Amino acid sequence: MVFQIIKEAFSSKHKNVTTKSSEIDFVTETDQAVEKFLIDGLKEKYPNHRFIGEEGVASGLKCQLTDEPTWIIDPIDGTMNFVHSFPNVCISIALLVNKVVEIGIIYNPVLDLQYTARKGEGAFLNGNPISVSPTTALSDSLVIMELGTTRDEEKRQLVRDNFNILQTKCHGLRALGSCALNMAHVASGGADLYFEFGIHAWDIAAGDLIVREAGGVVYDTEGGPLDILGRRVICASSIEIIKEVIPLLKQMKNERD
Amino acid sequence: MVFQIIKEAFSSKHKNVTTKSSEIDFVTETDQAVEKFLIDGLKEKYPNHRFIGEEGVASGLKCQLTDEPTWIIDPIDGTMNFVHSFPNVCISIALLVNKVVEIGIIYNPVLDLQYTARKGEGAFLNGNPISVSPTTALSDSLVIMELGTTRDEEKRQLVRDNFNILQTKCHGLRALGSCALNMAHVASGGADLYFEFGIHAWDIAAGDLIVREAGGVVYDTEGGPLDILGRRVICASSIEIIKEVIPLLKQMKNERD
Repeated sequence: MVFQIIKEAFSSKHKNVTTKSSEIDFVTETDQAVEKFLIDGLKEKYPNHRFIGEEGVASGLKCQLTDEPTWIIDPIDGTMNFVHSFPNVCISIALLVNKVVEIGIIYNPVLDLQYTARKGEGAFLNGNPISVSPTTALSDSLVIMELGTTRDEEKRQLVRDNFNILQTKCHGLRALGSCALNMAHVASGGADLYFEFGIHAWDIAAGDLIVREAGGVVYDTEGGPLDILGRRVICASSIEIIKEVIPLLKQMKNERD
Repeated sequence: MVFQIIKEAFSSKHKNVTTKSSEIDFVTETDQAVEKFLIDGLKEKYPNHRFIGEEGVASGLKCQLTDEPTWIIDPIDGTMNFVHSFPNVCISIALLVNKVVEIGIIYNPVLDLQYTARKGEGAFLNGNPISVSPTTALSDSLVIMELGTTRDEEKRQLVRDNFNILQTKCHGLRALGSCALNMAHVASGGADLYFEFGIHAWDIAAGDLIVREAGGVVYDTEGGPLDILGRRVICASSIEIIKEVIPLLKQMKNERD
């Protein structure tokens, strides 16, 4: 079973790792195996549906989002964590129809934590309803950001700038290494704010629905509506936090997915 | 039961929080209840043993480590996480005899993860043996550090300096908000290096043994032997990483516990 593939590979000290765009952008044979397993299974059940998968795109497929029912899949979000057997990893799966997310699933198979949402029906962790925190001020917020150990100096500088800005303005800062699980933490009330630049559709599609169904808000980092292919996201327990933090943040644009 | 106290309080959105030394140094009634429960129980069984507990010290007891059997207890490590219902929290318990750690236990009751060690008998996660990663180079390391959202500007500057130094030199950086669990991640091979300034004996006593019994190394941040009351720690999967990183780090001294 696919979760067993991930759990066994996770425990192995010798993973078969290759690099993608840079020396720290990994893909493992497990990423590829899980994506194939998921897409093959879904295709059998829904032969007319379309698919956008991280590994497919990495291997040259184009990232085309149409109005057709489309599954957006990240087989392992938090690949750096996975490579290090650090247990913050997940599968992220979303179903979009008319470019609107209808179903979102984020599953951490190592810790057996499954975050789910269906449009209009609320968000759940292992079947129990979840909701965002009641926090409305940045100064009371536990904030998640990533620390930019990329080899791209512009991104690294952006991270240093935003870290320096936020260090004195929030309750605490956490960096966990999985975009989808970061969104899941906001949805389940464990964190109050998360933002990131340079991410992809498969990192945020499921989280977008899960956060909103849990009562939270999801936007583009400049405050406009979330563009699922726009390579950046900000989400929070409340609109007040978003309004407070956006004027403070340094911004970055990436080429769209 | 004590774990139930924590789990129930963790899920509550309205925790009874007061502050200690600064506006973000929290103590909750759960911290106090758990510490009392543990010390009362141990005292009944071992009436001649001594105790050093975070909340006892916070309320004015002196932190005295003698050769007598002494339990060093942090009832909730990761109090900021606990206040935010962010699930990275734990109880940390160590037994020292002649100032040497004989038993270490780190337990995350929310995710049910129990890291244990007895001197000379290896380290375990939920009963299964654990070991540190095979990593020996900083450039291959997943590093855990905390991000210094304290109100102490010297500490904040230290964090910014060390973050800037490490951002380009390691595989990835994580910040999780619990010293004891950070050490547990190094012990179980999920992270390769962790260091921190300003911590206390109850944050590191159990982790010290668990990391070493898992094959890792624990030192003072300048490379000398760990001083359990010395307010700082560095631990890693291998001595090579320690030797590589120590000359890079900015250092800080705090008054001893």
